[in-house]
Amino acid sequence: MELSHFIKIARGDAPADLLLRGGQVVNVFTGEVHDADVAIADGRIVGLGRYAAEETIDVSGKVLAPGFIDAHVHIESSLVPPPEFARAVVPRGTTTVIVDPHEIGNVLGLDGIRYMFDAAKYNPLSVYVMMPSCVPATDMETAGAVLHWYDIAPYQNDPWVLGLAEMMNFPGVVNGVEDVLDKLRAFEKRVRDGHAPGLSGAALNAYVAAGIGSDHECTTLAEAREKLRLGMHVFIREATNAHNLDTLLPLVTPENARRICWCTDDRQPADLLDQGHIDYLIRRAIALGLDPITAIRIGTLNPAEYFRLHDRGAIAPGRRADLLVLDDLRTVRARMVFRGGRLVARDGELLPYERPVRQSFLRSSMNVHWDRVNFKVEAKGRKAHVIGAVPDQIITEHLVEDVTIENGEAVQDVGLDLLKIAVIERHTHSGNHAVGFVKGFGLRTGAIASSVAHDHHNIVVIGADDPSMMTAARAVGDMHGGMSAASGTEIVARLPLPIAGLMSDQPIERVRTQMDDLLRAAHDMGSTLHDPFMAMSFLALAVIPELKITDQGLVDVVKFQTIPLFVE
Amino acid sequence: MELSHFIKIARGDAPADLLLRGGQVVNVFTGEVHDADVAIADGRIVGLGRYAAEETIDVSGKVLAPGFIDAHVHIESSLVPPPEFARAVVPRGTTTVIVDPHEIGNVLGLDGIRYMFDAAKYNPLSVYVMMPSCVPATDMETAGAVLHWYDIAPYQNDPWVLGLAEMMNFPGVVNGVEDVLDKLRAFEKRVRDGHAPGLSGAALNAYVAAGIGSDHECTTLAEAREKLRLGMHVFIREATNAHNLDTLLPLVTPENARRICWCTDDRQPADLLDQGHIDYLIRRAIALGLDPITAIRIGTLNPAEYFRLHDRGAIAPGRRADLLVLDDLRTVRARMVFRGGRLVARDGELLPYERPVRQSFLRSSMNVHWDRVNFKVEAKGRKAHVIGAVPDQIITEHLVEDVTIENGEAVQDVGLDLLKIAVIERHTHSGNHAVGFVKGFGLRTGAIASSVAHDHHNIVVIGADDPSMMTAARAVGDMHGGMSAASGTEIVARLPLPIAGLMSDQPIERVRTQMDDLLRAAHDMGSTLHDPFMAMSFLALAVIPELKITDQGLVDVVKFQTIPLFVE
Repeated sequence: MELSHFIKIARGDAPADLLLRGGQVVNVFTGEVHDADVAIADGRIVGLGRYAAEETIDVSGKVLAPGFIDAHVHIESSLVPPPEFARAVVPRGTTTVIVDPHEIGNVLGLDGIRYMFDAAKYNPLSVYVMMPSCVPATDMETAGAVLHWYDIAPYQNDPWVLGLAEMMNFPGVVNGVEDVLDKLRAFEKRVRDGHAPGLSGAALNAYVAAGIGSDHECTTLAEAREKLRLGMHVFIREATNAHNLDTLLPLVTPENARRICWCTDDRQPADLLDQGHIDYLIRRAIALGLDPITAIRIGTLNPAEYFRLHDRGAIAPGRRADLLVLDDLRTVRARMVFRGGRLVARDGELLPYERPVRQSFLRSSMNVHWDRVNFKVEAKGRKAHVIGAVPDQIITEHLVEDVTIENGEAVQDVGLDLLKIAVIERHTHSGNHAVGFVKGFGLRTGAIASSVAHDHHNIVVIGADDPSMMTAARAVGDMHGGMSAASGTEIVARLPLPIAGLMSDQPIERVRTQMDDLLRAAHDMGSTLHDPFMAMSFLALAVIPELKITDQGLVDVVKFQTIPLFVE
Repeated sequence: MELSHFIKIARGDAPADLLLRGGQVVNVFTGEVHDADVAIADGRIVGLGRYAAEETIDVSGKVLAPGFIDAHVHIESSLVPPPEFARAVVPRGTTTVIVDPHEIGNVLGLDGIRYMFDAAKYNPLSVYVMMPSCVPATDMETAGAVLHWYDIAPYQNDPWVLGLAEMMNFPGVVNGVEDVLDKLRAFEKRVRDGHAPGLSGAALNAYVAAGIGSDHECTTLAEAREKLRLGMHVFIREATNAHNLDTLLPLVTPENARRICWCTDDRQPADLLDQGHIDYLIRRAIALGLDPITAIRIGTLNPAEYFRLHDRGAIAPGRRADLLVLDDLRTVRARMVFRGGRLVARDGELLPYERPVRQSFLRSSMNVHWDRVNFKVEAKGRKAHVIGAVPDQIITEHLVEDVTIENGEAVQDVGLDLLKIAVIERHTHSGNHAVGFVKGFGLRTGAIASSVAHDHHNIVVIGADDPSMMTAARAVGDMHGGMSAASGTEIVARLPLPIAGLMSDQPIERVRTQMDDLLRAAHDMGSTLHDPFMAMSFLALAVIPELKITDQGLVDVVKFQTIPLFVE
């Protein structure tokens, strides 16, 4: 629409497209809730006040809020691609997400990232991308791609790219490793997100001095306060596997609230469907006593300003008409969701929408040299380094245990809860695989396997016996990626994830059911963990202490090097 | 400095350049004042905490604050060019100003604006420019230049240009006048400042919908609240001729404080020297009860964020070391001022600094066709439209008065306080001039004249008799611009302003003395106004109601058209 006509509508000399009449507006500028009709034209808010419009919707008794913004999320963790993710979160009131597609980036490199760009277009959700900064996460693993600064820098010119995603390699930053700094330099005019769990003191100063503006890994109030004081924006995270909101909420004061955002990081289908998305964080924060307008501002204006998205985050003339009709400020239920002035969800359901045919093709990401894979472990000693799983944590313990030996081989011993864990390289047909032992999963029979294994996403498998492990792992391969539970030669449950071995091509509700089946199978086989698949997916993440495993072997994360399985 | 070395210093493995030790930091992120040593390297803050440094300054018992930022100022109103202005304000703690050079732009067009750019460089003050949007202010006056969108748009690429300056033509915006919208469109990716006194309701919605982000013309709380609600940033102004701080201070709440900035707009030498600059606003706000940290944040982080100056506005690693050592948070006296890590002022005095020889040449701006100028008024009626001056206001009354007639001419009558006012075109040698009558100045003898006459800055002269008027006006011409007071053929006092007829080439203290002399002379001649020169300078500003005068004649601002002197 011509600016002159937009202004004509704003001054009241031409009708608006749509008027939301009789509601109360959450004003994130002033901290008030006040009566105002909201007029919309050309997808934007054109005025607050009395307006004539082609169409009027009565929202008496309702509250109007800006659309919610997730400041940091890996869509891949929802196990569905952007359109299905949108179907889950938009009816909850999320209209913009800032994503880091580093899961698919580790599998398929720029092809995978471009797939996410493409899959995100024409959905009723604005998907902005931060370019992955750490692919692969370490050099002690075989990922599907390596992204250098010169690979990601050109994407700055993409209108959907806002900056550089979480710089997880904080030791690299603090120690001034040149190819890490190259990435920071390449994005020096853009927003650069951080990821620095526990970093403090001079090292934290160095990380901030390098130009990093945010952190979403705070787990204590003291840590968050130190980061705020140094000028970082603190993203309070409530993920499936990391619950920081209750702990960090006392951080928020009227004076510092502008420096806080909400993020979900990783949320699985069940949590998205049962709890919700940013609406859940806002609802919970309010229930815990936070001022509702502050809670909404943290999920709207704050991330918009931090990410320099000056066109959204508030209900004001000229801004995008991304807004919600809420029942009230306690339940924070979005009765209607408007995006770009269009009603896109109502009563919790996404409305049908047309999208141009825009098929994105991805090659299969499953490329395993199965002939070379076996799980036998020659006993080179009695004592082995054993990964100790810690319930509901992604850190592990580095145990040293006597292993059970039969015929010169170290074997599983369910009586001791000593299971085998293997990681099988799936990107380059190398045949690389490593086998180790894990304690704490409690399987008494069978095996579970998955191609979701942070961040390299090779196949990870844990089992009480080798044949079950092979059945489970092969099932993952045969599905071109996914999760499985197997017992002997029988596949007990499965969830195909054919998109990069990370995401399903099925509706999210079906994915959730399949995931439930998998969990039931694992629990039936004796697993004592709440979610053994998620726990397993982090046993391969070599940047989280203490002992992990990749396709290249056991990794002592504290020493940041691979180590032999047996104690010498 | 290489980023890697900067990080090395930050992590404590190399000494900083400078350490400010033992002070308390005003933390504008968290709203706290807390102990912290501040380390500086390469002109930037490198870390907060314990650091070794080449040089250490003990600031025990002192408070460290970020350097102050003026969100909107016309340097020309200080009657001195940027280096002298810097000498006045930097010792007060101002390290960054956002200027609108529209005074000189009206006189010398882009040449004048470039002069300000040049004169601003290499001073110990960051001078950012908003490109003037309204040159000339109306088409009922002859200015020295006309700036179209295509004249100003290319300057967007200048690193010192942040956006489009105050869009004073709010009727043009609201009514969608195309060449006004062209300017908004040209700067649509940049910050666009507003100026919309009293605008409200649908018209204000239209103004905001056009993309304008701020306003510094609020005079009532209701007006400011309406503008805040619609998403405008409100700049609270404390100028020489407009005092809004006391009225607007109750506006500020913890919830909306992030949307407020301080600005000075126009401040004359005496106010800068006696009261101060942004420090004065902060001091006064604190004295009136505002939380000191909030008061400082409004003058630091807030304008930095609004103007997207992400490198300043706070004391944090990586940001410019623009910071102040204050005695305390009550007097807000800057004992030391650091800019870019360098001590630039101490105990109220600017320290010597080297600047490259960078002579800027400006042509004379004084181009009057004196032969055509006379102040005779043929009596075409008994009743004339008369400008009624209102003490301490820039609005005027539109009076209709009987004039005194002698020999067929309408003449001054000091008994009735009916003086002549004339505006003489000085840019194009056109000989244009207009003569009218003014009431409220109280001169009983003599005349005063000035080449500062907003915004076209033609010569304006008010006098009790024609010969004095001619002496005063010619004196201004002979000085290539300036202010004068004359009696008969004698020049009683004068202030030369040879730089565009707006600014002196003398030290600001001398300008202030000359200004004091002028005011004394005017008062001795009977003027009843506090500052008749400032009052006179706004009688030519045809955008402020009700009756004004330009070189093209009397302007009925309400009807927005020129009118004859005599009532028909």
